[in-house]
Amino acid sequence: MRLPRIAVLPLLLLGLPPAASASPTTDVAPKPPTLADVLAQSSAADWRRPEPEDTLYLDLPGGRVVIELAPAFAPAHVANIRALAKEHYWDGLAILRSQENYVVQWGDPAAGTPEARAFKQARRRLPAEFARAADGLAFVALADGDVYAPQVGWSGGFPAARDPATGMAWMAHCYAAVGAGRDNAADSSNGAELYVVIGHAPRHLDRNITLVGRVLQGMEILSVLPRGSGALGFHETAEQRVPIASLRLASDVPEKDRVDLEVFRTDTPAFARLVEARRHRREEWFIDPVGKVELCNVPIPVRVAAAGKS
Amino acid sequence: MRLPRIAVLPLLLLGLPPAASASPTTDVAPKPPTLADVLAQSSAADWRRPEPEDTLYLDLPGGRVVIELAPAFAPAHVANIRALAKEHYWDGLAILRSQENYVVQWGDPAAGTPEARAFKQARRRLPAEFARAADGLAFVALADGDVYAPQVGWSGGFPAARDPATGMAWMAHCYAAVGAGRDNAADSSNGAELYVVIGHAPRHLDRNITLVGRVLQGMEILSVLPRGSGALGFHETAEQRVPIASLRLASDVPEKDRVDLEVFRTDTPAFARLVEARRHRREEWFIDPVGKVELCNVPIPVRVAAAGKS
Repeated sequence: MRLPRIAVLPLLLLGLPPAASASPTTDVAPKPPTLADVLAQSSAADWRRPEPEDTLYLDLPGGRVVIELAPAFAPAHVANIRALAKEHYWDGLAILRSQENYVVQWGDPAAGTPEARAFKQARRRLPAEFARAADGLAFVALADGDVYAPQVGWSGGFPAARDPATGMAWMAHCYAAVGAGRDNAADSSNGAELYVVIGHAPRHLDRNITLVGRVLQGMEILSVLPRGSGALGFHETAEQRVPIASLRLASDVPEKDRVDLEVFRTDTPAFARLVEARRHRREEWFIDPVGKVELCNVPIPVRVAAAGKS
Repeated sequence: MRLPRIAVLPLLLLGLPPAASASPTTDVAPKPPTLADVLAQSSAADWRRPEPEDTLYLDLPGGRVVIELAPAFAPAHVANIRALAKEHYWDGLAILRSQENYVVQWGDPAAGTPEARAFKQARRRLPAEFARAADGLAFVALADGDVYAPQVGWSGGFPAARDPATGMAWMAHCYAAVGAGRDNAADSSNGAELYVVIGHAPRHLDRNITLVGRVLQGMEILSVLPRGSGALGFHETAEQRVPIASLRLASDVPEKDRVDLEVFRTDTPAFARLVEARRHRREEWFIDPVGKVELCNVPIPVRVAAAGKS
């Protein structure tokens, strides 16, 4: 069967060596590694296991969505989300919104009414956490530029941006980013309504809303949810909403029921090789090797850990 | 009900006037138009009706997807797609591929085998049409920069890019772009296998494959199709594939069965105001007005024409 290979993400990557340049190379130069090579040659130190306290399991009829929280960027929101998960706040609530090329969002359809579900330990109001001081935050820069921010790259495994002029850093709204919905007031989010980016990166939301993490696994469960027929993709009837079976911290789930994921580190020479392999597309399929890569087009690989590893 | 308004595309846009600057304004300056204002104040001349010969109807179980073809960029492919549509080539074939955050693709599952569906008038082989001379092509530039191309903007209503150094222009792989799948050879596409971008803009495909148009209506039918379980999101069994009821040129459909769409022109002062309203986000919801906009985040509005218009 003829297989039009316009997609090459997981299987067919060929890259240049990390220090590729226009200088002459000899015939004995090693073949540039593919993404598969980069991953196959990786050591245990190139991967990290997200902390169970930073990992959420959103269980839906379609399966489990795994989210990694980013306490370095949004400590107050992450603490509240942990509290809400421990209260089983979201269990039996629903996905309220699915907007084409934008976001899926869940929470309490009765929020703001007398029928709203009560908070127990969780706080009703939090400070805005749109950005934080770049100081003290490890940051791996991407050299390729960006339309929206003076500098972009990765911090703690999350796509991020920073501004040397202001000394601030923030997470970037790439595909799979998870944020806390708010009303017009900057401090009107409390983490009870969460959204996930399912379309082209809405980077204009950067620094306008608090991002709390990103989806590691299960995007294909969220992205195919039928779009809502109401304004902004909200569902108009209870029947249209997808119910949430449960939303738990991995640390509150018995170890045997956890998903043992490993995330490729973004602060290693191996990740630099991965970025280079995405910047210069030397796969046989590519006619033009491109030579540039945009932040949200760099994958951060996630794998299920080999059985038996501790 | 509390409505977290993180999305503002169709309803809540406020913009700056097109010539907004840092210079002082008086108290009597007119209020900057919203996107709704821009559209409400538009005249008939700000809208265009795609030619029926350039319009495809892809009829699926989930509804109709309307595609506008771009003969200015891919004349040979568009001619072949017209020929294939007239042959009813795709009727009864299927969507073969749905890859998460990437593309949906359709064609003949038996392509390349003895069971492949025959071509009648359509050509089996076409030249690659990855780019064309910028000369003779009207182009409205976007001033905000781009990671992948020296210059981006719009041409004939399509997001596009060009390179003054080479004198070439090409369509950009934004969300909803439609292209012709190919094998490794540059000239191995013939328009029989078409894909639509359903994720973050894969701009690395620009100049590597022939784009033929973009979806005007019905993206939400394609984007929610369950992802394929095979490599690259291909479906592995016939049952998983979504059948194509028919794919027709609008010009071959009785007028009463056509969808009368109008597309906002991209070469007008009104469109410049729209871009400005997306660049400077002055809606009440926004805390940071952003100040930049990326090519693929600028909407090109499409509306159903008022009944009775000719």
